[in-house]
Amino acid sequence: MNSTPRILEVRKNILKQNDEIAHTLRSRFEEAGVFVVNLVSSPGSGKTAFLESTLTRMRSEFRVAALVGDLATENDAQRLARSQVPVRQIITGTVCHLDAAMIESNLKDWNLAELDFLFIENVGNLVCPSSYDLGENLRVVLMSVTEGEDKPLKYPTIVNSADLAVITKTDLAGAVEFDWPAASKNLQAVRPGIQILRVSAKTGSGMDDWLQFITSQRRDVVEHLVWHS
Amino acid sequence: MNSTPRILEVRKNILKQNDEIAHTLRSRFEEAGVFVVNLVSSPGSGKTAFLESTLTRMRSEFRVAALVGDLATENDAQRLARSQVPVRQIITGTVCHLDAAMIESNLKDWNLAELDFLFIENVGNLVCPSSYDLGENLRVVLMSVTEGEDKPLKYPTIVNSADLAVITKTDLAGAVEFDWPAASKNLQAVRPGIQILRVSAKTGSGMDDWLQFITSQRRDVVEHLVWHS
Repeated sequence: MNSTPRILEVRKNILKQNDEIAHTLRSRFEEAGVFVVNLVSSPGSGKTAFLESTLTRMRSEFRVAALVGDLATENDAQRLARSQVPVRQIITGTVCHLDAAMIESNLKDWNLAELDFLFIENVGNLVCPSSYDLGENLRVVLMSVTEGEDKPLKYPTIVNSADLAVITKTDLAGAVEFDWPAASKNLQAVRPGIQILRVSAKTGSGMDDWLQFITSQRRDVVEHLVWHS
Repeated sequence: MNSTPRILEVRKNILKQNDEIAHTLRSRFEEAGVFVVNLVSSPGSGKTAFLESTLTRMRSEFRVAALVGDLATENDAQRLARSQVPVRQIITGTVCHLDAAMIESNLKDWNLAELDFLFIENVGNLVCPSSYDLGENLRVVLMSVTEGEDKPLKYPTIVNSADLAVITKTDLAGAVEFDWPAASKNLQAVRPGIQILRVSAKTGSGMDDWLQFITSQRRDVVEHLVWHS
């Protein structure tokens, strides 16, 4: 189509603007000592259940909060409010991803220095969120066993932009005859060396490994800051 | 962001171009007497398994073919080839939906008059495909029981653009404690009057109802054509 080069150019400018805001956000997060996690996945892969379980388990030991993106509804914020930590819903309308400007404006009245961890639950989409840096320390791609083992090959860009893969709903792995070696092989094919965790928010299986992973990641960042200050 | 109004304007032009091509396609489909079905859903909701089962069951009685869209891989075309009907893969790269121009160029060497049904499996995405008319007769939104009952509320636009909702993987409904009344209520809330079918491609449950539905829909279209010719 004739206008494709033009939309690509406009999109490039938007991404450049996004990167600039993300850069500012990253400095603010670092200064405040808050470790920021961006959760991306397709719709219905269990991000919210995973996040609710994470927030509930962490809140006695850490100061945690969450921003959660959706095209419509406040449902996720309401579900996450059960974890009794600060949660804010971002409604994107027809936009299929969060961007750095949305994060910035929704953090305006939050004191980041009072947080140890900030979780961002992106809009359920395996394409759009991949290009939008939100200033996060860690991008986690979630894939449920019910989606099948081939998703990394079909959506390579988002897997490529992720730091960690979490396979969710492992309690259903038997029922769907999930092929673990194939899933691992496909993830490694598009993102060699990526670490893979297996969790079930329903049974709690694997949640300890996940919490250990992010707390150790945060420790590295905070120690790095102390070292350089 | 400053460029948002500009990207909206460019997008509007692209959609206008798409609608013009879709309009031409629709006339061609009508003339050829082929009934076209566009399947949309999130990644991993079971479109390919559903389509493979559909093609295999139909091929003895009807002339069927399929176009299948993905960002990357020929995997789906290879899976669907087992149904022994003509199948062509469309690779979209980073584009999160099929558009009418992609359909047009991939149909170039196919004789549409030799087909009764053409199935188009869209890219797995609950946002992007909603705005792109492909000239289809019927748009079907698929949602698996493992994705949860709230998806219609969170992705209202795509449900709103659909003619039929198909709930897939019903064999797993018990394992995930799927709430049928809630799912139905949420679908009806965003698309009042939408018909809902329940299928499991694995067990075959509900497939007869689905085949009956589309064959009767095609009959209506063909009879309408005969009546007016």
